[in-house]
Amino acid sequence: MEFGNNITVSQRLGLVPASPIRKLVPYANEAKKQGVKVYHLNIGDPDVETPEVMMNVLRNWHDNPIRYGQSQGEPVFLKALKTYYHGLGYSFIDVPDIQVTSGGSEAISLALFATCEPGDEVLVFEPLYTNYNTYAVVNGVKLVPVRTRAEDGFHLPKQKEIEKKITKKTKAILYCSPNNPTGTVFTPSEVEGLVALAKKHNLFLLADEVYREYVYDGKKQTSLLTYMHKIPKQAILLDSMSKRYSLCGVRLGALISLNEKIMAGVLRIAQGRLSAGFVDQAIAAKLTEVPQSYLESVNKEYEKRRDVLHEGLKKIPGVVIPKPEGAFYAIVGLPVDDAEDFCRWLLTDFRDNNETVMLAPAAGFYATPGLGKNEVRIAYVLNVQKLTRCIELIAKALKIYK
Amino acid sequence: MEFGNNITVSQRLGLVPASPIRKLVPYANEAKKQGVKVYHLNIGDPDVETPEVMMNVLRNWHDNPIRYGQSQGEPVFLKALKTYYHGLGYSFIDVPDIQVTSGGSEAISLALFATCEPGDEVLVFEPLYTNYNTYAVVNGVKLVPVRTRAEDGFHLPKQKEIEKKITKKTKAILYCSPNNPTGTVFTPSEVEGLVALAKKHNLFLLADEVYREYVYDGKKQTSLLTYMHKIPKQAILLDSMSKRYSLCGVRLGALISLNEKIMAGVLRIAQGRLSAGFVDQAIAAKLTEVPQSYLESVNKEYEKRRDVLHEGLKKIPGVVIPKPEGAFYAIVGLPVDDAEDFCRWLLTDFRDNNETVMLAPAAGFYATPGLGKNEVRIAYVLNVQKLTRCIELIAKALKIYK
Repeated sequence: MEFGNNITVSQRLGLVPASPIRKLVPYANEAKKQGVKVYHLNIGDPDVETPEVMMNVLRNWHDNPIRYGQSQGEPVFLKALKTYYHGLGYSFIDVPDIQVTSGGSEAISLALFATCEPGDEVLVFEPLYTNYNTYAVVNGVKLVPVRTRAEDGFHLPKQKEIEKKITKKTKAILYCSPNNPTGTVFTPSEVEGLVALAKKHNLFLLADEVYREYVYDGKKQTSLLTYMHKIPKQAILLDSMSKRYSLCGVRLGALISLNEKIMAGVLRIAQGRLSAGFVDQAIAAKLTEVPQSYLESVNKEYEKRRDVLHEGLKKIPGVVIPKPEGAFYAIVGLPVDDAEDFCRWLLTDFRDNNETVMLAPAAGFYATPGLGKNEVRIAYVLNVQKLTRCIELIAKALKIYK
Repeated sequence: MEFGNNITVSQRLGLVPASPIRKLVPYANEAKKQGVKVYHLNIGDPDVETPEVMMNVLRNWHDNPIRYGQSQGEPVFLKALKTYYHGLGYSFIDVPDIQVTSGGSEAISLALFATCEPGDEVLVFEPLYTNYNTYAVVNGVKLVPVRTRAEDGFHLPKQKEIEKKITKKTKAILYCSPNNPTGTVFTPSEVEGLVALAKKHNLFLLADEVYREYVYDGKKQTSLLTYMHKIPKQAILLDSMSKRYSLCGVRLGALISLNEKIMAGVLRIAQGRLSAGFVDQAIAAKLTEVPQSYLESVNKEYEKRRDVLHEGLKKIPGVVIPKPEGAFYAIVGLPVDDAEDFCRWLLTDFRDNNETVMLAPAAGFYATPGLGKNEVRIAYVLNVQKLTRCIELIAKALKIYK
């Protein structure tokens, strides 16, 4: 008998889904090897410039050695975050309410671990940010999806519809506004409704507000922070620096809560991973010096792109695109049976003037198997000229696909 | 009735231990506020300089925006890692066998998740790296400790003693050599013995080799990589850039395995967290340009410190310190009943010329409750002059404590 043949990996490893944003990357790389230009609308990795004041941290670097940061977060970055939230009008946020995380991803994972036992349920609204699925598996949590629909602009269904999904195992509601992947911005009454539900059923309420600044048509985002004192032990804010300052490769986010047990617990986990990146925190700490005009101009730029994408795509026969209200994503219905096959084909077969476009099949943004099969998620993270070319590519591709 | 009063965090959050390395930090901060100089021997955060070629990456930075890296790792860093392992003589390591991680911490966590179901057991040798405890809780895994003892220089007990602890639930053996916290370097026959055990009982074998380069007295470390082909599906190497290049604040490590299912699964989890730090990877990718003389001089420096610490401490009445063979730690027995109380007292009460020293109580480096109560872990990460002063401080403190 040869040993080691029947060694098996854990079952739970097999349950981790491949990212719909990233799983077609090998096909994109193959296309690039052939000299094809691939436009990336599959991933929310903006081409907008990182603020100069942050770039200068690198150029003027002198700390040597590059040491561990503090587990809760570097004091200079924690202070900057506090200043940022105070600037938004939430002056009750103090440093002990903030845990710096390695990207928004770690904040999501910590929040699920801290609020749920294995097997517990968390209500989510689908289509959802795909990596919630990953962190549900990693933390042994069951996501219970409440569906939102294109015809409602992906806004929330009635309170009663949501309430139907609450069971004895439900521990939390997790939502994202402005929404990735739909671009929907929940209204004040929608957020208030979720707060009321959390209060009534004694649930944690986890708000992913990574795209806070990206709301268009002169509107403003409604933050969970506005209602934090109504459910001080239950509200948890998940945040990230990635999109706000075009810092995706700087892996920094934050978990904010007034619940001291949550904060003490996540700090113990954070001690286990020692610290977030020291250089990254030094860069991000400059956020207080980023002029308001930067965020305003970035907002305007994305609004323009949103308009271009929306106007362009809705003209293509069979394409359904509700007008995104915020963030920089849209869930787009396509006149195809299998959007994943279409996305793969774009990378393997379709070329127009030796160019193609990469989209993310939307099925992976649902927790319910079978949904979203004819949809894609589009991240409008390229400039107007490139985006216009992408729309043209999509239109041409749909004409000749199958 | 007021709502939200009976909201409870998860039980598992309560099980996450506070880091013995970090939990006394508030006392250290308080002492510093009083103007006291605190020497940090509590944490393996070296004062050795990061190589210039790495620092120059920051000074010459031009990429803007700072984008996501690839989930498996940036190609330039993956290539550098491959070159590094080839340079050690392990030319079978190819890029698909490498997953870049956010510090060695993430590699540990991924390995436990990938090999164990919740409730499964992993054999570890105590005293152990304290954060194994954290990641065991986070992944719902039970650590089953096999004790190593000061009188054996913390080397492994006989094969039979280890074998006794293997049950039907045992999925893996996790070991660290050169060892944190004991400084012990396992001999070739010890590592071979673990490989044989893994083979015989069909277990995964997880080797934490973060301190590979730090072996003294002219000896060499024995890597699991040497035996990788004997148990190709079972061997997993956990690595980190933190100590090798004084890059603790650059959160980068690696998980290496020839098991394709493991690699595919950890990549899916890595996609969920998008990427490791982009700037950090650009820095670490320069590892191929770090001259061999750097690692040699760092090794010599630590050997000198090891000698100073060992010679100095063993002269103090009641202190027990086996001579560390590698890494930059020692588990030191003290003539006190409660080392944690002593460590806290050093920070709150003891001052000599307005200076004190911070040590890590060793109880948290055991998985068995009650062990290590009179021991501390000392990280000899300060230069000889400071280390000499620390020894003096410890000697003086022990004289007047209680």
